[in-house]
Amino acid sequence: MDSYLIQVNGQGDHVPLLDIHLKSNGNSMSLGKVKGRKPRWAVRASEMSKKTFNPVRAIVDSMKVEPNPKKAMISLSLGDPTVFGNLPTNDEVTRAMKEALDSGRYNGYAPSVGYQSCREAVAAYYSCPEAPLEAQDVILTSGCSQAIELALAVLANPGQNILVPRPGFSLYKTLALSMGIEVKLYNLLPEKSWEIDLKHLESLVDEKTACVIVNNPSNPCGSVFSKGHLQKILAVASRQCVPILADEIYGDMIRDGLLRLSQRILGPCTIVQGALERILHRTPPDFYHNTLSILKSNADLCYAALSAIPGLQPVRPAGAMYLMVEIEMEHFPEFENDVEFTERLISEQSVFCLPATCFEYPNFFRVVITVPEEMILEACSRIQEFCEMHYQGAEGAQDLECDK
Amino acid sequence: MDSYLIQVNGQGDHVPLLDIHLKSNGNSMSLGKVKGRKPRWAVRASEMSKKTFNPVRAIVDSMKVEPNPKKAMISLSLGDPTVFGNLPTNDEVTRAMKEALDSGRYNGYAPSVGYQSCREAVAAYYSCPEAPLEAQDVILTSGCSQAIELALAVLANPGQNILVPRPGFSLYKTLALSMGIEVKLYNLLPEKSWEIDLKHLESLVDEKTACVIVNNPSNPCGSVFSKGHLQKILAVASRQCVPILADEIYGDMIRDGLLRLSQRILGPCTIVQGALERILHRTPPDFYHNTLSILKSNADLCYAALSAIPGLQPVRPAGAMYLMVEIEMEHFPEFENDVEFTERLISEQSVFCLPATCFEYPNFFRVVITVPEEMILEACSRIQEFCEMHYQGAEGAQDLECDK
Repeated sequence: MDSYLIQVNGQGDHVPLLDIHLKSNGNSMSLGKVKGRKPRWAVRASEMSKKTFNPVRAIVDSMKVEPNPKKAMISLSLGDPTVFGNLPTNDEVTRAMKEALDSGRYNGYAPSVGYQSCREAVAAYYSCPEAPLEAQDVILTSGCSQAIELALAVLANPGQNILVPRPGFSLYKTLALSMGIEVKLYNLLPEKSWEIDLKHLESLVDEKTACVIVNNPSNPCGSVFSKGHLQKILAVASRQCVPILADEIYGDMIRDGLLRLSQRILGPCTIVQGALERILHRTPPDFYHNTLSILKSNADLCYAALSAIPGLQPVRPAGAMYLMVEIEMEHFPEFENDVEFTERLISEQSVFCLPATCFEYPNFFRVVITVPEEMILEACSRIQEFCEMHYQGAEGAQDLECDK
Repeated sequence: MDSYLIQVNGQGDHVPLLDIHLKSNGNSMSLGKVKGRKPRWAVRASEMSKKTFNPVRAIVDSMKVEPNPKKAMISLSLGDPTVFGNLPTNDEVTRAMKEALDSGRYNGYAPSVGYQSCREAVAAYYSCPEAPLEAQDVILTSGCSQAIELALAVLANPGQNILVPRPGFSLYKTLALSMGIEVKLYNLLPEKSWEIDLKHLESLVDEKTACVIVNNPSNPCGSVFSKGHLQKILAVASRQCVPILADEIYGDMIRDGLLRLSQRILGPCTIVQGALERILHRTPPDFYHNTLSILKSNADLCYAALSAIPGLQPVRPAGAMYLMVEIEMEHFPEFENDVEFTERLISEQSVFCLPATCFEYPNFFRVVITVPEEMILEACSRIQEFCEMHYQGAEGAQDLECDK
């Protein structure tokens, strides 16, 4: 055996396969002829990739986000609780990960659905008498985004449709459209703490409806449905015989299809799987309580502060990490829409909130409440200054006339 | 705010959404009527999930794998170098992961394409003067299986075809078929150390060919192409204007499509990303050298031992972790095919090798050479005993006649 070469460092003497040819200049090369076919370079991105579209990125990337240089930027736009370090993970989680690393037992291939022991631990953790769960009901994925992808892929064929909440998390639509699945938006009602407009929901169901996505607690609304409301949702689904895809959770009616699809991914991170059982069992309850208590306190502070601002109507949240705020656009005639409103909020006050057009819900913006308390208060105070500057009441507009 | 509930422990008082209805008994429920439509429960797995099919699983799951109770099982079937603990990862890798954990900086959301710093580290590591790489050329995924999925999804539309090596890694076909992409198999030539049959390859190209997958070093063959052979492959691709999808590596001609598709996955494990730069830079060269040296030594031992066995023709490997062995079926008339041969090898000798029908290559089996040396030797000795027991040479068959 002359050489036993594995390309671990890219320093081998193999020709780098792709770059040579795919950088070549389109159709101007001299072309060979085989079987009467005249080959030409025409490598195009697939239809699927062209249909893959994240509306949040499209809107945010085209927003003007130059902050006011005199004010430090406060970003309330990204739903990531780890950004400011005020909500660290629990040490027990880190220790569990280190233990999994040190054991050396989780560096190989796991079954595509996840380790059996890990599936058992998850099933035991979430099982309850009314809805018993077994290991075979659990399929582990790389993040919740992949769980949603698998759940959609197993339920819907191209040409079918799914019902998605408006306002709602944009990934549902991104994934569905890329798979050729139509999206129909059902309304949430801000005046009813973002409960589902059940009549509207039911009116959208047709023969091609593959499932209803119910996201509870909600991103971006921060709402939590009552038991009574959930039972009404179930009644609609039952009457229409349409399965519910509950964000992050799905049942066992589609087991074989999911098993098959899981073979496309060859399983999620094994180190995390190695740590999961310990994370589930040993993370102290205090960790959850403290995190929830900080979120609740921030939500209360933020809601109270925004409620006092002329022209804004926050909707009280009850869960998740978000709060939605209505902009009474008639009082801000300077601004065309929520995108312009939030752009100017950045350029004048250096506060970045996501325009709810990102969630198919114009004239609102979303506030992330995971930032440190003093930052929330500073942000609310700047939002107040901004609104007072631009607010035009019916009388205020007249006053302005009189002043001239 | 009455309740601020996030379902962290599944003990909340929400109705468990899915189980209630999807376990209900088919069409026998009383059904409502809406808009003239008569809903019925008919939740079916999608066409995509039905098309998702892992041939290795299908073959292996239906194999009889009861070992001989008198002999401890030796499994040479799974290409996972971590199973026996003889090829541990380097401590530097574990330390890098722990550092990433302790920093607390990698517990949040990363861009869907991966952290910029991480992409830069990968680009710098693999860049070379003939094929310079930049951060924007790198998209990080959850494992190589997802990289292959993205690369296929961006290059091929349903109805197109891809050219795949035979024998070859089964995931290409699994993924392609699940996406509605046709698979055409081009031949590798065992008598030429598994080089590609270039004429056969070129004859398969048509207007619908989206790409050629070149897997080098090869699973299951353990072969490594020479520079000259790679240049000939490139010449075919260039003449036919068909892009090459080099397993684990892909170029920048499809950048926008890949960026879009990466938004479907929301990015790979952040902890691993946090550790990656250090892993790339600080893992000592000795680690790679020692690993390769063990693999080379095992490959040599295994090749030598199997070469001496009547009725077997191993093909010398030069890379990866595999070795393919031809079974001269005419000398084993007892066995219908490689699946039966390997089944009996388990039941008599407790040695488990994958039948190469798993790789679309009947009458061969694949040996994994990452197991400890003494285990390789023991396995080869048992394979020898097995073959001597069942081998029937032309003369041997006559002798047998004479004995009667």
